[in-house]
Amino acid sequence: MKGKITETSISLFGQKGFKETSIQEIVDHLGLTKGTFYYYFKNKEEVLVQIHERFIDDLLEKQEKIMRSSLRPEEKLRELVRMMIENIRASVNSAMIFFREMRHLSEGKLLYVRQKRDLFQQNIEKLVQEGIEEGAFRTDLRADMISYFILGMANWSYFWYEPEGEVSEEHLADIYTAILLQGLESKEKE
Amino acid sequence: MKGKITETSISLFGQKGFKETSIQEIVDHLGLTKGTFYYYFKNKEEVLVQIHERFIDDLLEKQEKIMRSSLRPEEKLRELVRMMIENIRASVNSAMIFFREMRHLSEGKLLYVRQKRDLFQQNIEKLVQEGIEEGAFRTDLRADMISYFILGMANWSYFWYEPEGEVSEEHLADIYTAILLQGLESKEKE
Repeated sequence: MKGKITETSISLFGQKGFKETSIQEIVDHLGLTKGTFYYYFKNKEEVLVQIHERFIDDLLEKQEKIMRSSLRPEEKLRELVRMMIENIRASVNSAMIFFREMRHLSEGKLLYVRQKRDLFQQNIEKLVQEGIEEGAFRTDLRADMISYFILGMANWSYFWYEPEGEVSEEHLADIYTAILLQGLESKEKE
Repeated sequence: MKGKITETSISLFGQKGFKETSIQEIVDHLGLTKGTFYYYFKNKEEVLVQIHERFIDDLLEKQEKIMRSSLRPEEKLRELVRMMIENIRASVNSAMIFFREMRHLSEGKLLYVRQKRDLFQQNIEKLVQEGIEEGAFRTDLRADMISYFILGMANWSYFWYEPEGEVSEEHLADIYTAILLQGLESKEKE
């Protein structure tokens, strides 16, 4: 039941917004009473916290798996972009909540979620730095700024990409990594 | 006075959210009465509409200027990325409202703002297509997907970039266009 409340909240918060969704609406959607909601959650913010944590924990876990693999940096980057784009289908509402509703978290929880979000960025930066040091990537740019470039082009897809549309996830990931990897290529290799 | 009400609303909606800001708070910030607010605006949504229109109209105008110039496609792209990043300093709150609060517009206004937003994307797509046809950009990718790539990496900057920080707008734009232009380069040129 807790899972169902969370799933319904994800869909309502994602479509209408956190502030715009009442606990009454959540329970109405499930044919429950408010009492059942309060049995599982202290308040609406607790659901929001859980959505944020699940979204970023899941991404971090998938990222860790790629980082720990024995792939070369450019292959890891390709896998990472593919993973982020493939995640849209399952998690677009959670992502909208994650990107838009962070300001509704209480201070302590905000700090905690921010640290995890920053870790995701820092892992990309580290990967880019490795690629630079191994000579796979060009050396004239900054790994931190490159990590934001990658986050930007991939995360923005949540706002417009339609997985059921003309371009498959795999195709989009191929186009994005084609530009990115050629763009980062070290000229010394040529 | 109308301008001051708009400016204060931009700063409050941007920081706290549209739904979370009351007309009372807007007028309190300016030491006005609600009557003055209603002299200039029918309701809070009318302010929101104006913020959306001003933000996208301003971007479209700056984009038009670049598009109409006699620069080569790759130079136009560079100018475009620079313009989008330079716009952060002046308009970060408007941008946050533009990206996050579109769902609070009424249907008719939403359609109108969406058309303008789509035009901004289509102009980038057209520019990329020109570059492909002139042989400046690679031919193996899709101009529409490339335009979203560019929008993503540039627009995402509004969420994290600090113009007063270590990296200047010009430097960031240089890094971003360095990756982008090398990434789009036609191999036939080499």
